Amino acid sequence: MKKIVLGVDIGGTNSRLGFVDEQGAVLAKAKMETLPHEGPEALWSRIWLEAQRLWQDEVPSVKTLSGCWSAIGIGAPNAHGGRGFIEYPPNLGWAVVDFLGIVRRYTDLPVWLGNDANLAALGEGRFGAAAGQQNFLLVTLGTGLGSGLVVNGSLVEGDSGFSAELGHITLEEGGRQCGCGRRGCLETYASANGLRRTVLELLAEGAYSSRLGDLSFAALTSEQIFQAAELGDQLAQVALKRTATYLARGLATVVHLCSPRSIYIGGGLSLSGDWLMKPLPEQLERNLMPVFRGTVAVALAQLAEADLGILGAAALALSSLEGIERK
Amino acid sequence: MKKIVLGVDIGGTNSRLGFVDEQGAVLAKAKMETLPHEGPEALWSRIWLEAQRLWQDEVPSVKTLSGCWSAIGIGAPNAHGGRGFIEYPPNLGWAVVDFLGIVRRYTDLPVWLGNDANLAALGEGRFGAAAGQQNFLLVTLGTGLGSGLVVNGSLVEGDSGFSAELGHITLEEGGRQCGCGRRGCLETYASANGLRRTVLELLAEGAYSSRLGDLSFAALTSEQIFQAAELGDQLAQVALKRTATYLARGLATVVHLCSPRSIYIGGGLSLSGDWLMKPLPEQLERNLMPVFRGTVAVALAQLAEADLGILGAAALALSSLEGIERK
Repeated sequence: MKKIVLGVDIGGTNSRLGFVDEQGAVLAKAKMETLPHEGPEALWSRIWLEAQRLWQDEVPSVKTLSGCWSAIGIGAPNAHGGRGFIEYPPNLGWAVVDFLGIVRRYTDLPVWLGNDANLAALGEGRFGAAAGQQNFLLVTLGTGLGSGLVVNGSLVEGDSGFSAELGHITLEEGGRQCGCGRRGCLETYASANGLRRTVLELLAEGAYSSRLGDLSFAALTSEQIFQAAELGDQLAQVALKRTATYLARGLATVVHLCSPRSIYIGGGLSLSGDWLMKPLPEQLERNLMPVFRGTVAVALAQLAEADLGILGAAALALSSLEGIERK
Repeated sequence: MKKIVLGVDIGGTNSRLGFVDEQGAVLAKAKMETLPHEGPEALWSRIWLEAQRLWQDEVPSVKTLSGCWSAIGIGAPNAHGGRGFIEYPPNLGWAVVDFLGIVRRYTDLPVWLGNDANLAALGEGRFGAAAGQQNFLLVTLGTGLGSGLVVNGSLVEGDSGFSAELGHITLEEGGRQCGCGRRGCLETYASANGLRRTVLELLAEGAYSSRLGDLSFAALTSEQIFQAAELGDQLAQVALKRTATYLARGLATVVHLCSPRSIYIGGGLSLSGDWLMKPLPEQLERNLMPVFRGTVAVALAQLAEADLGILGAAALALSSLEGIERK
């Protein structure tokens, strides 16, 4: 009988849930608006109802011996797995929420919580491109830059319960203002927003004329920048190459400290085609001291963006269950 | 009966060896010139003779059941534990040396090799300030900057076999020339040599007059800079504070990625008193994003400089033996 777990991914705009088996097949899934202003309890109550509906109606009929799924994994921004709390999550507007406490009022099933970017690495390591690898980094280039780091086969969770904040290492002392309150963080350069800011800087520099000058900053999207680059817009091309250079400098830091075998790039910006991804490995090599050159592969993440959160949360539940069974 | 291992520390100028028990007591030790131009085989043959002399003459008479010590641990610069090689070690002038191959021609005892900076962290974690800690960083501020990183209770050795090269993360893009061939590496700022370069920069800036202006760069030592600072020399004081600021920026990167509980600072420069060490924790906090503030302690390393290499190598031997026994 297969083990089935529920994976839940809480995001700023939408939340997703799905039932996942041990092979990483998503048996049934759903998506709903997060509506963070209604609070975490209201969100969980809707997720819980939807999970039961999915289980009854959409998960194929032969299920499990007990008639129930085995465990729940939950991913959220700024989640602290050890405490079971979600703490000042960006885009949700909550303070410190005892999220596992809420969930445990609804079920006796084992449940675990983790930081979404870390869980993405767990998912990629269990079901995706990094399967079987002991040392790798997953970078998710969305609006910001998320990352999860696996060292010696285990997720780096940090003594504080927070870790792998690659987006917030300082790339430029006194550089661009970051949402975290500091300046020059990598994600202000290497992310969809960072790319948009680089386009503006290049427009201000004035070395290239560009059709992107017709758009307001508010209206400018990374997709428009990709399209312009494809159509031969030199400024858009330079902006993407610069983004690769910024990102490469950040990745080099991880290589010098942890020497991963592979670095996987996911998220919307990774789909920008060759303008970003092609110069990246070469730029990374340029930023490495000799002993690390040629030791690290850069590749696209493999799990589909839409399922990544669910699969990461499911990977947390499955690996935690295995941890219990080993004891 | 106690287990006793031989710890060997190969350095650019001197090499050390010592017999160490499971509690970290150094039962007998010796120091000799490395004489790297004579080659690695000549060095090992002298170390081996000296080890046998120490064992017979200086290790207290009640020894071990077998009459022999249990294992050998060896630390060296640019050592690759997995391959058993020492590869292009700075200051030794060797190319790629199969060092374990040489050692095994002299003995059947189990022997392990590791990077000296990593082994220092193992030693500090087994016998010193970091005992029992699952996540910590050890930084050794000597001529350069060495570091060893422990995550989830195990040493970060890297997929490539090289890792924790904190001294070579880029602090200033296009900054000071580094011995590794790149520019702006942290160790060109935060190390004894970095401090000397900062003094020169400050002399060039000309904002402070200083007695250090009477010394040539070749003659200037970090000890002279400490003494000048103690005697009220403002330039020397500013140079030490700037060094703390540079180091703090590098340490912040490690905190954002791995969130250690503690950062231990060892090496000659850590003994410079309050001018460097006092501003360091505050500067580190300033460079952290909010969730990491207050989560990491900065303290002096505990093991004596003279025994650190021997104890680190012994820790490698002891933990490797335990790994075998568990299997």
